[in-house]
Amino acid sequence: MIGIPQHLIDRAVDAALAEDVGLGDLTGTLTVEPDRRAKAAAVARSELVVAGLDVFRAAFLRFDPATVVQPLAADGERAARGTVLATVDGRARSVLAAERVALNFLQRLCGVATLTRRFVDAVPQGAKTRILDTRKTTPGLRAFERYAVRCGGGVNHRSDLGGGVLIKDNHIAACGGSVGEAVRRALRGTGPTQRVEAEVTSLEQLDEAMAAGAHAVLLDNMTPERIAEAVRRAAGRVVIEASGGLRLEDVPAVARTGVDFISAGALTHSAPAADISLEFET
Amino acid sequence: MIGIPQHLIDRAVDAALAEDVGLGDLTGTLTVEPDRRAKAAAVARSELVVAGLDVFRAAFLRFDPATVVQPLAADGERAARGTVLATVDGRARSVLAAERVALNFLQRLCGVATLTRRFVDAVPQGAKTRILDTRKTTPGLRAFERYAVRCGGGVNHRSDLGGGVLIKDNHIAACGGSVGEAVRRALRGTGPTQRVEAEVTSLEQLDEAMAAGAHAVLLDNMTPERIAEAVRRAAGRVVIEASGGLRLEDVPAVARTGVDFISAGALTHSAPAADISLEFET
Amino acid sequence: MIGIPQHLIDRAVDAALAEDVGLGDLTGTLTVEPDRRAKAAAVARSELVVAGLDVFRAAFLRFDPATVVQPLAADGERAARGTVLATVDGRARSVLAAERVALNFLQRLCGVATLTRRFVDAVPQGAKTRILDTRKTTPGLRAFERYAVRCGGGVNHRSDLGGGVLIKDNHIAACGGSVGEAVRRALRGTGPTQRVEAEVTSLEQLDEAMAAGAHAVLLDNMTPERIAEAVRRAAGRVVIEASGGLRLEDVPAVARTGVDFISAGALTHSAPAADISLEFET
Amino acid sequence: MIGIPQHLIDRAVDAALAEDVGLGDLTGTLTVEPDRRAKAAAVARSELVVAGLDVFRAAFLRFDPATVVQPLAADGERAARGTVLATVDGRARSVLAAERVALNFLQRLCGVATLTRRFVDAVPQGAKTRILDTRKTTPGLRAFERYAVRCGGGVNHRSDLGGGVLIKDNHIAACGGSVGEAVRRALRGTGPTQRVEAEVTSLEQLDEAMAAGAHAVLLDNMTPERIAEAVRRAAGRVVIEASGGLRLEDVPAVARTGVDFISAGALTHSAPAADISLEFET
Amino acid sequence: MIGIPQHLIDRAVDAALAEDVGLGDLTGTLTVEPDRRAKAAAVARSELVVAGLDVFRAAFLRFDPATVVQPLAADGERAARGTVLATVDGRARSVLAAERVALNFLQRLCGVATLTRRFVDAVPQGAKTRILDTRKTTPGLRAFERYAVRCGGGVNHRSDLGGGVLIKDNHIAACGGSVGEAVRRALRGTGPTQRVEAEVTSLEQLDEAMAAGAHAVLLDNMTPERIAEAVRRAAGRVVIEASGGLRLEDVPAVARTGVDFISAGALTHSAPAADISLEFET
Amino acid sequence: MIGIPQHLIDRAVDAALAEDVGLGDLTGTLTVEPDRRAKAAAVARSELVVAGLDVFRAAFLRFDPATVVQPLAADGERAARGTVLATVDGRARSVLAAERVALNFLQRLCGVATLTRRFVDAVPQGAKTRILDTRKTTPGLRAFERYAVRCGGGVNHRSDLGGGVLIKDNHIAACGGSVGEAVRRALRGTGPTQRVEAEVTSLEQLDEAMAAGAHAVLLDNMTPERIAEAVRRAAGRVVIEASGGLRLEDVPAVARTGVDFISAGALTHSAPAADISLEFET
Repeated sequence: MIGIPQHLIDRAVDAALAEDVGLGDLTGTLTVEPDRRAKAAAVARSELVVAGLDVFRAAFLRFDPATVVQPLAADGERAARGTVLATVDGRARSVLAAERVALNFLQRLCGVATLTRRFVDAVPQGAKTRILDTRKTTPGLRAFERYAVRCGGGVNHRSDLGGGVLIKDNHIAACGGSVGEAVRRALRGTGPTQRVEAEVTSLEQLDEAMAAGAHAVLLDNMTPERIAEAVRRAAGRVVIEASGGLRLEDVPAVARTGVDFISAGALTHSAPAADISLEFET
Repeated sequence: MIGIPQHLIDRAVDAALAEDVGLGDLTGTLTVEPDRRAKAAAVARSELVVAGLDVFRAAFLRFDPATVVQPLAADGERAARGTVLATVDGRARSVLAAERVALNFLQRLCGVATLTRRFVDAVPQGAKTRILDTRKTTPGLRAFERYAVRCGGGVNHRSDLGGGVLIKDNHIAACGGSVGEAVRRALRGTGPTQRVEAEVTSLEQLDEAMAAGAHAVLLDNMTPERIAEAVRRAAGRVVIEASGGLRLEDVPAVARTGVDFISAGALTHSAPAADISLEFET
Repeated sequence: MIGIPQHLIDRAVDAALAEDVGLGDLTGTLTVEPDRRAKAAAVARSELVVAGLDVFRAAFLRFDPATVVQPLAADGERAARGTVLATVDGRARSVLAAERVALNFLQRLCGVATLTRRFVDAVPQGAKTRILDTRKTTPGLRAFERYAVRCGGGVNHRSDLGGGVLIKDNHIAACGGSVGEAVRRALRGTGPTQRVEAEVTSLEQLDEAMAAGAHAVLLDNMTPERIAEAVRRAAGRVVIEASGGLRLEDVPAVARTGVDFISAGALTHSAPAADISLEFET
Repeated sequence: MIGIPQHLIDRAVDAALAEDVGLGDLTGTLTVEPDRRAKAAAVARSELVVAGLDVFRAAFLRFDPATVVQPLAADGERAARGTVLATVDGRARSVLAAERVALNFLQRLCGVATLTRRFVDAVPQGAKTRILDTRKTTPGLRAFERYAVRCGGGVNHRSDLGGGVLIKDNHIAACGGSVGEAVRRALRGTGPTQRVEAEVTSLEQLDEAMAAGAHAVLLDNMTPERIAEAVRRAAGRVVIEASGGLRLEDVPAVARTGVDFISAGALTHSAPAADISLEFET
Repeated sequence: MIGIPQHLIDRAVDAALAEDVGLGDLTGTLTVEPDRRAKAAAVARSELVVAGLDVFRAAFLRFDPATVVQPLAADGERAARGTVLATVDGRARSVLAAERVALNFLQRLCGVATLTRRFVDAVPQGAKTRILDTRKTTPGLRAFERYAVRCGGGVNHRSDLGGGVLIKDNHIAACGGSVGEAVRRALRGTGPTQRVEAEVTSLEQLDEAMAAGAHAVLLDNMTPERIAEAVRRAAGRVVIEASGGLRLEDVPAVARTGVDFISAGALTHSAPAADISLEFET
Repeated sequence: MIGIPQHLIDRAVDAALAEDVGLGDLTGTLTVEPDRRAKAAAVARSELVVAGLDVFRAAFLRFDPATVVQPLAADGERAARGTVLATVDGRARSVLAAERVALNFLQRLCGVATLTRRFVDAVPQGAKTRILDTRKTTPGLRAFERYAVRCGGGVNHRSDLGGGVLIKDNHIAACGGSVGEAVRRALRGTGPTQRVEAEVTSLEQLDEAMAAGAHAVLLDNMTPERIAEAVRRAAGRVVIEASGGLRLEDVPAVARTGVDFISAGALTHSAPAADISLEFET
């Protein structure tokens, strides 16, 4: 599993704590003695795929390094309802103050991983298709949601606009309408670790993109039948990604066409939070 | 409508642009001429409540101040499928590079506003209950999601842990189990603009909290019947908030009990992104 | 005692060190051997109330984690002239370089706590009045000065403009002059942990505010006699704060009127620094 | 007048606004219509020396660039009680939200300038002594308080530890007790724009420092008589600074000794805020 | 020409100004009247390739928006000795204060572009080889140096470790020594816009990498003869990059082997600053 | 040796890691097992002066605190070709990911130190001249390059524009052409740790500057003969700095004139990176 760089975790957690704690936890400090201790357990309240335990842990530790967080599951694993994902032990004030931030991260990341896994599991046995995310991530949380996608068995698309070439219809329009011309321009500035991918909406465009030297194509909003035809036409000469509002129930048919990737913005922009609670020992 | 402070918009948009643009948009700059212009329209592809047009606009302007964004709707309004929410006019490279960040914000905020509005609309005619958000917001986006809740007709809970007192079961446990003692402690450090609210799980606790001087109570995970009983018992002496996994379909019955507030984490942690696309003139 | 969140301490200390140390301590590094050690004691040179020892300590540790700072007093305590508040032991270069930042924080915070304590002690035995701060804090140091006020026995007002409702004369003017209308508007957007407070300058306004449902009123610039009259009129139905250029010598008379709070900007904007020196063992 | 670099103003103002505005001004937005306008004037309520009008202005403009702030006085000028220092004209919500931050800066900076001017004015006619600040500034506000000192007619000491050499008693102790040795070491690493200054507490140390090549000496905690003796002994060969708890009433006698500089931490650490209010037109 | 995102320019320029200006320009403000104006011209004092005029301009404008900077050349152009690259017109204090930061950026970026252009020009007529940079950039200036490489006619390698796959000898060693195994692992997590590149040091490794599906190979520290052999063996099936301490004089021979790319760390880590001065009109 | 403040190291290293690592090291995490360990040694591949081992170390530790870096040389020492400067031992993924940032810093700082040492060594035996840097440093790296200059035996000029007075020809021009007038103005605002230095281009200006009270002069672009004449004329009354495009081969003749300082921008703006590689144990 490719982890999230620690500095990104620390920065996002610090910002979230600053946002949530404000000038300090009024309630906890007014009602709880400073030396009071608390133990708690993060419990899955529905089946989920785990993602983000390092972030959950960092939320408590960045707030109070004396807190002890013990993960009892591993990112990428499935957890049944009732599974204890981690335990937390520390000053009661600290645990109560950092709890919400820790859960806000964990619930979101498990939510993304769980939805991704459902997409991955929907690919029929034997099909080579992989599930891919998009740039439709929550502002500020790209590294985190990308990681959760990997925890769910997905593959990540380019990290940012500087990290890869994907020619869309509007680029083509701005190039005078020719996908071939756009591909040729892109090839001139592409280094050895990058492929040029172009969005195509017809078999003619597919031919033109391939002729111009595109390494990959994105088939946007096509039916499985059209996709299958494109796959046959490409005959393995380019990598093929299917995209465009694909829902979970569309995955099997699209995967059977033989595409290399199915990408879905919903993995990151519409995954519901996983249901996880922090239960305190009393 | 209470707006989002501009400095928070600018900071979040800048961070999102940095995250998404990286060292620069490779595709746009390789394939599109620098002086090429583009016009586009943000179109609602399903019915939604508008929220975040200022953020949408800022994404384009922070990237390139020469871009012109014209809002054609107002935050808080309902927009039917097909409504043009705003137009964008600028350098094609700039519009293409900032598009994703602009939409990522707008889709999320409209999603939150739309879901909130559905909760608000579920309150029966004549009931005084208002819909309230929680601290279960996306890390880094609290000001934005709070704003979207207001756009949907909801009311905001305390801004952060320093901005209000809410005594939960774990505070009470850490106080030796007495909600009355916790309330009394909290009252000592509470200023003139703050109310002390306490979570109660029984009528006995409700009595104890009121006796100790609590100004508000949160009824956690109670049935409508229990809530109704608590409302009668309180007899207007305290503000009452019902909470705990309440779904849209639970709202009418709970509102009919006469509670002042229904709060729901789902408003912010599980709202699906609204479906909005940026369509380019060709 | 409600502490200052550690991340706020670290951030403010880091900024202060950056500001004071610049590219590095030229004098210390030119004249002191790297392995030379130093011991020093922070000594109160006049009577004071202690506040900010954690910040004092952080200044040395953020500069050089190998420094040992041992507090010998506790925040909130009174210290007589000559009291050793803390000892510092570390590399001489590090102690000399961080000394000024550590003292700049400690002297200011003890200054605020000491002045606050004088206000608190001026409340006559038996009066219930508490001393309250304002938003007139040093830019960048609100969390610190708020904490120092608590160390001196004071209570904090709302943390920021998003953390509470306080309707001032200018809001009322902008509302068409009616405090009642302003209160009614504010009540619509106020959550369960917030009270609506309104500034009133006459008994008529007081009546109007109470009739509209205000939970608290601020009596601005009134004589003790007027204040006493207002307290009688309110008869316990609203929380009452007296404010407006109140000096230490005004506290007893105002407190005897029975107001709940006296607020004073001077606590934070005009407290002289406490006299504390760092004395080195030789 | 040497101004404050704009980027320092913007950064400090942004941080102060973030601290004070939080998620947004609840009161103003709930009670004031968005298109309501306000005009106000910043009025000196006691005699003062002006400092910080650029910062006052920036507070309104950074919050809302559509606000118009018109300075009616200049930094460095004396203003009598009742003087209008500046006018503000803009959206009522914006003026009300930024008012506190603007005044917090202006009151502090005018306070420092006013106190400095009193020290400067206490230097007898004909004496060459200049008033100097120290590193005892408010954490985070050094550039601002240094500027205010200049507005009051004072001169600034070194900007930070990397910007000049000042050998104190503890450096000397760490050097084996010899001020001469410390000076010689410091001279080796001193560039062409820097003078080496050493603190001396006796005439012997003064001789030793001069013999070693010191360019300036700081006389710490000496009586005017001792200072006068030192000045005679130095005979113009070194620059002389008198320091150590000097109060306003000490200035004339010390200045008459002929020292080049009198430095006082109180200028920045204990100046009371100037009394300035923002009065709204109604 | 792919520009540098404006927010990266602003952030780097602001940091550089903060670093260089400190609390303010002492000399300029002490010696120059505030209303004095200055005109100056940035002049190439030796032949160079232009890069970074936007950054040069931003240095003056971020310091003082009233400054007017007029570029008289375009990035990517060659400029002969004596060419005026830009003119600057503004307040004398502002021009003098921002001059050094503006030149520090411009000289470095022109230096990189000029050296890159020398490499590009050393590729013989007819050879397809392109010149590529590396990750050996100045910490903090990657976007800037990458841009300068493009101005000099070069192509950029992957933007960062998350933006592409390049398997080096140490990855292979950590994989048990098999380049094929490393390539296969990498292919599993590679999205549609990425190519897998592997470093190879022998023809056997080349065969193994190609058999495993590598899309590109880096030939490290090979002689032109070995490179030529590798190119023949690859027969167009993979992209080929030659690297490893290649100097300008090595370029022709290596390019004639038919490699796709020659990469050189020296382009960014050892380019001498271009000689440019800011000459003031008097 | 005067070290670099730790907070500057941490901030610069964090920024460099963020820039280089992006969303995470794709290659290392795809190809290397998480528990795989690596040992490596930083080896000088040509003779150099060491500078920056603390920064090198911080790069690994900020990325992964479990990494152990053992310095085997000390900053300021000369290292022969083949010398092991430090060893690194840690998780293979961490070592591989942080390697480039660590080397980018170390190679640049050793490069600056090595070039500085060559200048220092070029000063003839017996001459008192010291080598001085300038403000021509890499944006963002001033503290680092200043430190490297000290490691090479050089002395640092003023830290920033607020840290010292250096009157250049353009200041003089803006003052009406009189160096004497400029010096007199500067003296008024100069504190006890600062000398006023003025650039002079003729013996007449030298006389005028000295008469006005300048403490130091910068002789710009003069021949050794002119410099010698100026040194005689000054007769020890002012500190003398020679500057202006001086190359290594010019140092002996200029130093023999008896100037106090020779300054050279090339030390920081054009030092080639030292050749250092990280060699892994296999």
